[in-house]
Amino acid sequence: KVNGARLWDSLMEMAKIGPGVAGGNNRQTLTDADGEARHLFKTWCIAAGATIGVDKMGSIFAQIPGTDPQAAPVYIGSHLDTQPTGGKFDGVYGVLAGLEVLRSIKDLGIKTRHPIVVTNWTNEEGSRFAPAMLASGVFAGIHDLDYAYDRRDADGLRFGDELARIGWIGEEEVGARKIHAMFELHIEQGPILEAEELDIGVVTHCQGLWWLQVTLLGKDAHTGSTPMLMRRNTGLGMARMIELVQTIAMEAQPGAVGGVGQINVYPNSRNVIPGKSVFTIDFRTADPAKLAAMRARFEDEAPAIADALGLSIEIEPVGHVDPVTFDPTLVERVRAAAARLGYDHKDMISGAGHDACWISKVAPTAMIFCPCVDGLSHNEAEEITPDWATKGTDVLLHAVLETAII
Amino acid sequence: KVNGARLWDSLMEMAKIGPGVAGGNNRQTLTDADGEARHLFKTWCIAAGATIGVDKMGSIFAQIPGTDPQAAPVYIGSHLDTQPTGGKFDGVYGVLAGLEVLRSIKDLGIKTRHPIVVTNWTNEEGSRFAPAMLASGVFAGIHDLDYAYDRRDADGLRFGDELARIGWIGEEEVGARKIHAMFELHIEQGPILEAEELDIGVVTHCQGLWWLQVTLLGKDAHTGSTPMLMRRNTGLGMARMIELVQTIAMEAQPGAVGGVGQINVYPNSRNVIPGKSVFTIDFRTADPAKLAAMRARFEDEAPAIADALGLSIEIEPVGHVDPVTFDPTLVERVRAAAARLGYDHKDMISGAGHDACWISKVAPTAMIFCPCVDGLSHNEAEEITPDWATKGTDVLLHAVLETAII
Ligand SMILES: NC(=O)NCCC(=O)O
Ligand SMILES: NC(=O)NCCC(=O)O
Repeated sequence: KVNGARLWDSLMEMAKIGPGVAGGNNRQTLTDADGEARHLFKTWCIAAGATIGVDKMGSIFAQIPGTDPQAAPVYIGSHLDTQPTGGKFDGVYGVLAGLEVLRSIKDLGIKTRHPIVVTNWTNEEGSRFAPAMLASGVFAGIHDLDYAYDRRDADGLRFGDELARIGWIGEEEVGARKIHAMFELHIEQGPILEAEELDIGVVTHCQGLWWLQVTLLGKDAHTGSTPMLMRRNTGLGMARMIELVQTIAMEAQPGAVGGVGQINVYPNSRNVIPGKSVFTIDFRTADPAKLAAMRARFEDEAPAIADALGLSIEIEPVGHVDPVTFDPTLVERVRAAAARLGYDHKDMISGAGHDACWISKVAPTAMIFCPCVDGLSHNEAEEITPDWATKGTDVLLHAVLETAII
Repeated sequence: KVNGARLWDSLMEMAKIGPGVAGGNNRQTLTDADGEARHLFKTWCIAAGATIGVDKMGSIFAQIPGTDPQAAPVYIGSHLDTQPTGGKFDGVYGVLAGLEVLRSIKDLGIKTRHPIVVTNWTNEEGSRFAPAMLASGVFAGIHDLDYAYDRRDADGLRFGDELARIGWIGEEEVGARKIHAMFELHIEQGPILEAEELDIGVVTHCQGLWWLQVTLLGKDAHTGSTPMLMRRNTGLGMARMIELVQTIAMEAQPGAVGGVGQINVYPNSRNVIPGKSVFTIDFRTADPAKLAAMRARFEDEAPAIADALGLSIEIEPVGHVDPVTFDPTLVERVRAAAARLGYDHKDMISGAGHDACWISKVAPTAMIFCPCVDGLSHNEAEEITPDWATKGTDVLLHAVLETAII
């Protein structure tokens, strides 16, 4: 078993870097605080006996040797960057649990055949530079390096320039590393494990997603003097489409979600019927056919809603990830480890996207979840208990050792 | 008759101040552009022989003398401020038509018993600082001066501070002036006159309104990892309430409207279910009982929508005007002037609120409408023809002279 107190201390120490305004963190990718967090992580890894590699995306690889010089490493990875209103655990927990695995292996004097690498993937959150999971996406060949370098934040700053500015452009070619297997331990970011009083989620799949940005155009007009039947009200059209998204998601149960997070109406004035509304739909499910059907149904039915109100509609896909099935052998090792340790667990599907989703395209990959309070994440009030943190890391240690020894 | 070409030139000259992005104007109240528009208006009024008074709300009163020192003035008033996506005529036309009346009286050497005053009422639109018709409301004793000064815009700036900043806090006590009568000439902001090929609307009543600001609180949560049945989605609640507003308005036909113009969701991120949504409803009708019933039905039915989704709801009235019946004697003078000039006209109800609505509480008041293209207003593409502009001002001149002479 791992040293839970040491893990918790490291989590609390790391949370001091890039504090938020309400007890959480604002340590967005490639900020000075991100640079500071990387240095602390690097220092800790070296103290744990690891050697450090960095690739051209700034992803950090802290490696301890195996006994077989030919064997590819087993990876443990997640991310140290946070949302602007982020918690202390989303991503950070998976990286520092990896560090705790290295420390425990050192303490216990364990030798493995495969080397073990703990990874901090750059820019998982995607809130400063879209899209999310950027460095793991380049590693897996989903995106080009140039595409990634050219991403810009809201102030127009380039990803490549900011990575150079904080001093973390490494030497390694992105994606050149061999991977025997990768594990990612993460907080659930949803309410299921806590509600069912379970310690461990054995993640078998990750939902795929479609993000659709909808633009409705009608006519700005006076709310008082424009008769009801002469209106071209995009706010009303949007309302009906939010209801359609809800209907599509409910009729796709079980195992699917749909919602609208981002909404902007123009000119956004109390006495003007909005002549323009823009909003983003997020559809997710682990079933590829169902995912395609959800998108298709929206694209099929929304135009009639727009038409009935005299609106024009444009639907633009702004994000896509295919559903992922994690490697059955690795998943079984996670399940077996939880059982052996006597931790209550169940198979589950990841609702959120993770670096593990992209890495699963190029190497056997699995994920482990621990509960989080109220399912809350992307919120400074995000919380987990030290007990949950420890149990998840125990399972990680066991699954990694099983994979690295043989 | 008035000088239509001179009036049109002044309208086009004024429209250069605070240009919008699509050919109209963004000259919101108490901005630098509003200050510039006031200075131009003042310069023009002085050139037309008027003396200028300004009250503590920044309303401007440009007065030419009458022959009887005891006689209270006849007012012509409207507003120079615009919506964020405003037209060149909404309000501005009524003020500059008043100026054209002063200029015509000077040209023709006419003497009246009563003085004549052209007024620019501060903050009619209410888009930067709610509520609308703020200065005329303080003048009529509806609002306190302190209440008005404490209104804040979206950036938290105070009305009183912004009025001081642009240098237009006057000496006059608000509401101290005597008013013999007031006329407001305005574009219809609706489609009726144009559709019926009429020149003049003789405004007999004005719709009353309720503005209700609704705040829904649920829970920020991840759009991917939060199961449908565990969501407390304020965006969905808002969508259902927008539909309820539409139903209430449709079932209140004829002669009623309802809509939602302002919508803000938080944190407004693609992958976060909005834990907070705030939006404003605008209900209007000329029938006091129906107006009360529309508000009551929303307040009655909305809480069940919120409840079904696990949301809390707060409904705050942020604007109210009772339906108005204008002064029959003045209305008849408008009707008679249109008939005498041979202009096609009909009696009608104002859909929009106007400064005249508040002033009608403290003095005999009437309104005149001219058509506008497609009924479009609160839109940069708002348009009227020079011929419509001239005919409306001719009627204004006649009605004002009839009232000021006796
Ligand atoms: N884990 C996580 O929140 N990733 C961000 C991308 C997403 O799933 O919306
Ligand atoms: N005339 C006008 O648009 N006034 C603004 C107040 C309202 O919404 O009616």
